[in-house]
Amino acid sequence: MGSNILIGQAGGPTMVINQSLVGIIQEAKKHSAVSRIYGALHGIVGIMDEKLINLHTESHTNLERVAKTPSAALGSCRKKPTQNDCLQILEVFRKYEIHYFFYIGGNDSAETALILRNLARETEFDLHIIHIPKTIDNDIQVTDHCPGYPSAARYVAMTFLGNDMENRSLPIIKIDIVMGRDAGFLTAASAMAKIRPDSGPHLIYLPERPVSMDKMAEDIQNTYKRFGRCLVAVADGLCDENGVPLMKSKEIISNPGTKTNKIVADSFDNPQFKGAEALNKGLTHKIHKKLKEKVRILIDTPGYNQRCFPNFACRIDQHEARMVGTAAVQFALQGNIDGSVAIKRLSDGKKYQSDVFLTDLENVAKHSKKMPDHFINAEGNGITHAFIEYLQPLVGYLPQIGFLHNL
Amino acid sequence: MGSNILIGQAGGPTMVINQSLVGIIQEAKKHSAVSRIYGALHGIVGIMDEKLINLHTESHTNLERVAKTPSAALGSCRKKPTQNDCLQILEVFRKYEIHYFFYIGGNDSAETALILRNLARETEFDLHIIHIPKTIDNDIQVTDHCPGYPSAARYVAMTFLGNDMENRSLPIIKIDIVMGRDAGFLTAASAMAKIRPDSGPHLIYLPERPVSMDKMAEDIQNTYKRFGRCLVAVADGLCDENGVPLMKSKEIISNPGTKTNKIVADSFDNPQFKGAEALNKGLTHKIHKKLKEKVRILIDTPGYNQRCFPNFACRIDQHEARMVGTAAVQFALQGNIDGSVAIKRLSDGKKYQSDVFLTDLENVAKHSKKMPDHFINAEGNGITHAFIEYLQPLVGYLPQIGFLHNL
Repeated sequence: MGSNILIGQAGGPTMVINQSLVGIIQEAKKHSAVSRIYGALHGIVGIMDEKLINLHTESHTNLERVAKTPSAALGSCRKKPTQNDCLQILEVFRKYEIHYFFYIGGNDSAETALILRNLARETEFDLHIIHIPKTIDNDIQVTDHCPGYPSAARYVAMTFLGNDMENRSLPIIKIDIVMGRDAGFLTAASAMAKIRPDSGPHLIYLPERPVSMDKMAEDIQNTYKRFGRCLVAVADGLCDENGVPLMKSKEIISNPGTKTNKIVADSFDNPQFKGAEALNKGLTHKIHKKLKEKVRILIDTPGYNQRCFPNFACRIDQHEARMVGTAAVQFALQGNIDGSVAIKRLSDGKKYQSDVFLTDLENVAKHSKKMPDHFINAEGNGITHAFIEYLQPLVGYLPQIGFLHNL
Repeated sequence: MGSNILIGQAGGPTMVINQSLVGIIQEAKKHSAVSRIYGALHGIVGIMDEKLINLHTESHTNLERVAKTPSAALGSCRKKPTQNDCLQILEVFRKYEIHYFFYIGGNDSAETALILRNLARETEFDLHIIHIPKTIDNDIQVTDHCPGYPSAARYVAMTFLGNDMENRSLPIIKIDIVMGRDAGFLTAASAMAKIRPDSGPHLIYLPERPVSMDKMAEDIQNTYKRFGRCLVAVADGLCDENGVPLMKSKEIISNPGTKTNKIVADSFDNPQFKGAEALNKGLTHKIHKKLKEKVRILIDTPGYNQRCFPNFACRIDQHEARMVGTAAVQFALQGNIDGSVAIKRLSDGKKYQSDVFLTDLENVAKHSKKMPDHFINAEGNGITHAFIEYLQPLVGYLPQIGFLHNL
């Protein structure tokens, strides 16, 4: 009789996280060493509550439907386990004879995996943990890029492509706030919409480059003078020159007995920036002071669709998310090892190709990856061509846009 | 020698407004009675500034590309003309020998068309004006539905389909604010995402049914108790029981020398509700007081993508937007008449089919259409099956969503 395996999903959803889930299930089914395939509902929360479901009996047809569906089919969580939680989780592993744990998530989930792995070693419990990367932020170390990012990047690029057409038609100053706490990769993807010399986004502000509201207002003023309109991409984790976040939260924790209307932090101490009120009040006031004419300023956000729009995932993203899931099982069963699956870009000079490899959990846990310097322009308000070269093969081509010739 | 025609686009963009533009151009090219085909940049603003371009020389291939591109290719405007503006516009018509004016827009544009037509009659200038309907709000009188609405409705339905998957995965109280000033048609389209008995949106609030924040908080509390989560669709024109808008504007007019941070109105006296600050502060506080446990509440919006997402327009919407453009030219040239093009739904009991007819400008100008009573549920927090029967043929089927069987 073989070992039982357990799969969990964690963190914010992506359009392809279920491809990884299904990759693990379909591959695990092939191995005689695997007896039972369990799924944990809502990640480690479901493990602690023993909410485990049987994934072995899911039909091939239904699994392929699930694979194409955005968001975490098993349910997700944002919990950082305490030492006691980890001991409880290991108890459940023992009870259900689970010796392989596949955790699909971001660097927080890799950290959870690392803590569990270390505790299992200390208690001499035979447990192998593979972390399968997933995030729209693309902020996971080691891997060339992260499954979930290409589809979200395409969504952001398409958003700016549409917003730029709207901005040409009704010229205003429009500021779109894009998801991205520590890394600017997703906000930077807006640059793919720059299909003409006058196309927006005309300015791109990233968490890697703190900026004062005065500088932003000046940039926007200059762009407006030049084009009679201005489209701006701002990462929601953007900070001012003193490191203070420019955006305040729209999220409120309903917590009776405490003061609630403040920036909340999840249990990984990640402040959650979703709102635009502070930016709205501060920045629009400054622009208003600089501009001598009546101009409409609008702050907007593409919302959760960035990470969860149905029927939108990129071909390559779907393929790679499946690939890392499949490879996770192969790595785990063939080598009896731990680690995090990473993607390597193969440059044969022509067609984009990629492969997978395993890296130590220590290399990806907790610390997030930033945009490298050579992807960001000198002024800190845009990106370089090197970034477009990195991104384009992942996102594919955007749909053709028609302009009247005689305009 | 024939007459010259002029085409203009006005109001907020849609994903198919250029189908109507191209429909007019392609049809006009076929008629020997038409000498020149002019396009006005930014609607009547471009007419007054004599910013007219030649549309006759645009190639067929390029026009077809433009037709598939969202937003107004000629540029748009939100200007309500004064009496003097109208006289100036008629002067330009005389100068360029324009005897047919095709204005693609909402009921505000129909009003502009009506004013111009009446003034032309008074001054005995031979001018025929056809209004071509366009709006994502679906609030134009007479027509069964309005080009632009089906694609926006599909986008909203897809947004809620994705948001519901996310809400299952990470259960919170999520409130999505959908565009819709006076009519709830677009917000109501969210109901197409209800593919399972427990699917969101669980509550839908429309401008046609004013509601108190207390009632909303109570509804949300009840849903949360039942499903452990709650997804809500709110129209941004929603008013409380006293008729006071629940949302404040995020838009700020930069107007030196005046007080700026207030709800702004465009020149048609339409207040612009884009923000969610008031709703956020008032409603979340009330929910917070009712719920005894810690719950995350998030207020979000799908943004401008609702009306301008590339490569997303519905097949039927594209077809009908082209059809109303084509028909406008035929009506104008064959009958030498004025009016607004409207769509009639042909019920042969099987396949959806539609046809066009002309209605008087007086019938569509200014006054907007509301959701009829039989489309809204008795409690005023949801829609009826009759509305789904109305909407479904326009939007088509949504992509298949996969759920794990053993959940």
